Amino acid sequence: MTRILGGGELSAAIRADVTARAGGLRESGVQPKLAVVTATDDESTAWYVRSIAKAATRTGIECQIVDLGATAVQNDVLSALVELSADSDVHGIILQTPLPDGVDVTSLRTAITPDKDVDGANPLSLGRLLANQPAFAPATAAAVMALLDHHEVPLRGRLASVVGRSVVVGTPVAHLLVQRDATVTVCHHHTVDLAASTRNADVVVVAVGVPGLVTAEHVADGAIVVDVGTTATDDGTLLGDVDAASVEGRAGGLTPVPGGVGPVTTALLLANTVTAATTLSTTTHRDAGVLVGAVAR
Amino acid sequence: MTRILGGGELSAAIRADVTARAGGLRESGVQPKLAVVTATDDESTAWYVRSIAKAATRTGIECQIVDLGATAVQNDVLSALVELSADSDVHGIILQTPLPDGVDVTSLRTAITPDKDVDGANPLSLGRLLANQPAFAPATAAAVMALLDHHEVPLRGRLASVVGRSVVVGTPVAHLLVQRDATVTVCHHHTVDLAASTRNADVVVVAVGVPGLVTAEHVADGAIVVDVGTTATDDGTLLGDVDAASVEGRAGGLTPVPGGVGPVTTALLLANTVTAATTLSTTTHRDAGVLVGAVAR
Repeated sequence: MTRILGGGELSAAIRADVTARAGGLRESGVQPKLAVVTATDDESTAWYVRSIAKAATRTGIECQIVDLGATAVQNDVLSALVELSADSDVHGIILQTPLPDGVDVTSLRTAITPDKDVDGANPLSLGRLLANQPAFAPATAAAVMALLDHHEVPLRGRLASVVGRSVVVGTPVAHLLVQRDATVTVCHHHTVDLAASTRNADVVVVAVGVPGLVTAEHVADGAIVVDVGTTATDDGTLLGDVDAASVEGRAGGLTPVPGGVGPVTTALLLANTVTAATTLSTTTHRDAGVLVGAVAR
Repeated sequence: MTRILGGGELSAAIRADVTARAGGLRESGVQPKLAVVTATDDESTAWYVRSIAKAATRTGIECQIVDLGATAVQNDVLSALVELSADSDVHGIILQTPLPDGVDVTSLRTAITPDKDVDGANPLSLGRLLANQPAFAPATAAAVMALLDHHEVPLRGRLASVVGRSVVVGTPVAHLLVQRDATVTVCHHHTVDLAASTRNADVVVVAVGVPGLVTAEHVADGAIVVDVGTTATDDGTLLGDVDAASVEGRAGGLTPVPGGVGPVTTALLLANTVTAATTLSTTTHRDAGVLVGAVAR
């Protein structure tokens, strides 16, 4: 029997905590506020952004969607990020992808001030994370770790395989697992024998966006499998990277898609926003060298 | 027969290139300059810093040793780094460890401006590296990669194990190997069965500072072993992390200690200084979002 490691309970607990903390901030005169910058007419992105906005509102966080439209150019996005970074009413900033062709998301991420970088998108946030300094981790990576902890999956000394090396998921997850004393193997599309690199692992995290990539042959008996993949089909179904039917009975536990990492990610974005609002509202002056916005990890 | 993968030839080639580029800069009126900040009376550190200074001078780079003494406090070091970061005559800054007790090196590293951060010490440099943006990599990590390339060790699709997870070596080396399409396992002192995590690898990089840790049982037949360890004994001998006698005949290649990674590291610090001088002297204005100082990789 493969245990289903859902994210609903954890997500609800985080959101309840966020609601309480947001209430406390409002009582002290601070309205926590999240800004989401978007520049696409992709419908599934619009749906996702609205779902963040709804979740924010429900927990008492104001959410401003800055829709620059699908014709936005580099400078439009840059100006928006610089303005929001400087706006003392804004505590969290998310730059939503995809962006229009010709817009370089990597350089734009450096324009999000690290103390509002609730999705850990700025390379400085990533660098701080890797230098073991306080920083917001990319929310999806943090959600993977939170989900493993919630389901009491031991990590120290265990073998973990991360499939995928993206800047937003694979790379930070691998590092967070190393920080938690797991022995970690990073696999990607140049890995010659993927199954050989995953089937000894106690924990397998898959984040590539290839539906059904991971099957029983990739998974050790009893291994915990975290599925970060979310590929949307034409009919709106979300598909994970793990073939759930194939690993059923073999994996010890599997996070479902949807309902696993996704809702925890959203909840952590809100939690980070409240943390940022708390830090920003209690800090009158910050030196360049002072680090803000520690994420729970 | 285990091939000895020395760093002398590569180091000499890099230094010859540095000498030519430094000459070109001086002809255009720019004297490339490296500053090394030190605050210790540890003799082996002083020896190392002098060796960098000598190597710099020989290639036509001015080297300023800023010796703050073993009684320096946090603010002394911070002030020195801020001053050097602002000094237009300085193009490269190294913060040498160890530092006095109570001085927090991690936060000080953020005070080194990334465009002079020739040893990739600032977390922002690390973050840029991990976000696949141009940045100076930590010189030792870059030296490992340069040495592998110099000896034509293939990496794409190969299995690599990195023993050690330090911010200055293990973590960036692991990432650089992943960037070069190797499948990479990160091991450390919580790894339960180290040999199991290294003996399938085509390339093993060891950077922990435990003399003789890696023996024949850790190494696959024909594997390439890179020894980053340099532990100084009382009589001044440098000891690597690899038991060279043990792996002899089994490993396909081994970098010696001394004479392997070390001289390449020093040469790359000088190369990065000339690169920084070139970039800084040709750039009149830099936006926050503009990235400088790409390292060859």
